[in-house]
Amino acid sequence: MSNAIIAAWNMSLEGVKAACELLKNGGEAPEAVKKAVNLVEDNPGFSSVGYGGLPNRLGEVELDAAYMDGSTGYYGGILGAKGIANPIDAAIKLSKRHLNCLLSGAGAEQFARIEGLAFKNMLTAESKKKWEEALEKEKTSPGAYRGHDTVCVIVRKDKHIAAGVSTSGLFMKEPGRIGDSPIVGAGLYADSAIGAVSATGHGEDIIRGCLSYEAVRLMEQGRSAQEACKTALAAHIARMKSKGFAIKDVSLVALGADGSFGAATNLKDGEFTFVYADETHPPAVWTISGGVQHIAAR
Amino acid sequence: MSNAIIAAWNMSLEGVKAACELLKNGGEAPEAVKKAVNLVEDNPGFSSVGYGGLPNRLGEVELDAAYMDGSTGYYGGILGAKGIANPIDAAIKLSKRHLNCLLSGAGAEQFARIEGLAFKNMLTAESKKKWEEALEKEKTSPGAYRGHDTVCVIVRKDKHIAAGVSTSGLFMKEPGRIGDSPIVGAGLYADSAIGAVSATGHGEDIIRGCLSYEAVRLMEQGRSAQEACKTALAAHIARMKSKGFAIKDVSLVALGADGSFGAATNLKDGEFTFVYADETHPPAVWTISGGVQHIAAR
Repeated sequence: MSNAIIAAWNMSLEGVKAACELLKNGGEAPEAVKKAVNLVEDNPGFSSVGYGGLPNRLGEVELDAAYMDGSTGYYGGILGAKGIANPIDAAIKLSKRHLNCLLSGAGAEQFARIEGLAFKNMLTAESKKKWEEALEKEKTSPGAYRGHDTVCVIVRKDKHIAAGVSTSGLFMKEPGRIGDSPIVGAGLYADSAIGAVSATGHGEDIIRGCLSYEAVRLMEQGRSAQEACKTALAAHIARMKSKGFAIKDVSLVALGADGSFGAATNLKDGEFTFVYADETHPPAVWTISGGVQHIAAR
Repeated sequence: MSNAIIAAWNMSLEGVKAACELLKNGGEAPEAVKKAVNLVEDNPGFSSVGYGGLPNRLGEVELDAAYMDGSTGYYGGILGAKGIANPIDAAIKLSKRHLNCLLSGAGAEQFARIEGLAFKNMLTAESKKKWEEALEKEKTSPGAYRGHDTVCVIVRKDKHIAAGVSTSGLFMKEPGRIGDSPIVGAGLYADSAIGAVSATGHGEDIIRGCLSYEAVRLMEQGRSAQEACKTALAAHIARMKSKGFAIKDVSLVALGADGSFGAATNLKDGEFTFVYADETHPPAVWTISGGVQHIAAR
């Protein structure tokens, strides 16, 4: 089986390239997830993840991250934490624990300090400026909730699949707001025997559908990664619509243990991008056309 | 279809009785959930929920709660919040929001203050004493993580199903630790067209299996509430076992839109109790015999 990496959004391209190098040099899936996510977290140019992530309504950057190892079933996450330079590193360390593996706020920060992780002020001058501008036009609401572009990375190395996500969440969110990202089953789900899925978009809608879990479950029933993503998203949209509930932006990326990969979105053609690489496909940006019905297939 | 209420643990008996009265007097499912949960939250005799809940390692009572309305698909939750007298009330209020419906820590507390919810010191003298004793025998660990008895209430009134959960989480948990309770799909899931499921036990194991979502999904495929709980739990245990992962205490309760009810546990015979009531069964405590294979059936 070919080793492979898939990651949501074109911002992951450099990270995926670095992770591919790492795999070629003998690195394993967990290290590759960490590498790809770290490069996005560290880049102040990406306004929805890590350093330079856009802040909450109070001007504070609050971070969510999670990691799941598909071979051991272990996962860890942090939510609503501040100042941790690389949130995914805290999530990976927490995934070694059975209990107390999901920590919020000050508890997550204390854990990171004890583990010797780096801290920094995650608000850049650029992010601060965007926040000040948003405060100015405060009442023009929904548009303010842009910037939900979570970094989602899934790596398959040999028979080992691992997934990691990291985000600063919705721009101008309420303080303490938690999205899907740190929640196993919502923001990510990995099972090395089946595959892994990760989600990006409006977390409140993703978590309500347990979308990453549901798509992995569909793969377990024999669907390809692509079919699983499409089916899970379409079914969730239909179910919520039947209740009069219109879900907002949701996109999924997936790798199957069978070698398949896939993605689905309810964004307009071309709006959702992802990065894919395997041993015959060098890292490149892909997109989706035709909404949830079509994909730039292999 | 008969109206019905199911709730985890015998501590819910008085709450279920009060909720039954409320339904008889014309109350609706959401009010009945609130009533049943409030009575458990307010009782200092119950050491794992609300007032009198056992604290974290630092001696602070940290509260998780969630509410889901099966007819609208809306849900809300708070996690790692302190001092909110009735956490379920905050969750119910948050469930009216589409975005920012899941709030952690200080953000949840600020929301509760703005909504005018009551605050109090949730640590009773009795809980403080138990915490001091636990600190004494600190290093005798796992036993310290007792007391995971979340209040889980599901109400079906006419064709409307709603579910609510509230807990102070694991005794002696790490500060900021979050369990399954506030997470939709893990601690609870409700769909009025299908049914609802809620979970109690070691949250880290429940969340990893998306157990409430999975059991509702099995009901959607035609299983009774009882079959769905048994199947979801057994499959999760088997899946994690195949990875060398031994899951800890997990119990589920469920109501089906078809009138069925059920429960499942991996505790020993008689250790898990629940309360059930419908128009022909007055509120009473039930138990499970034979592990996940058997149930005190209707």
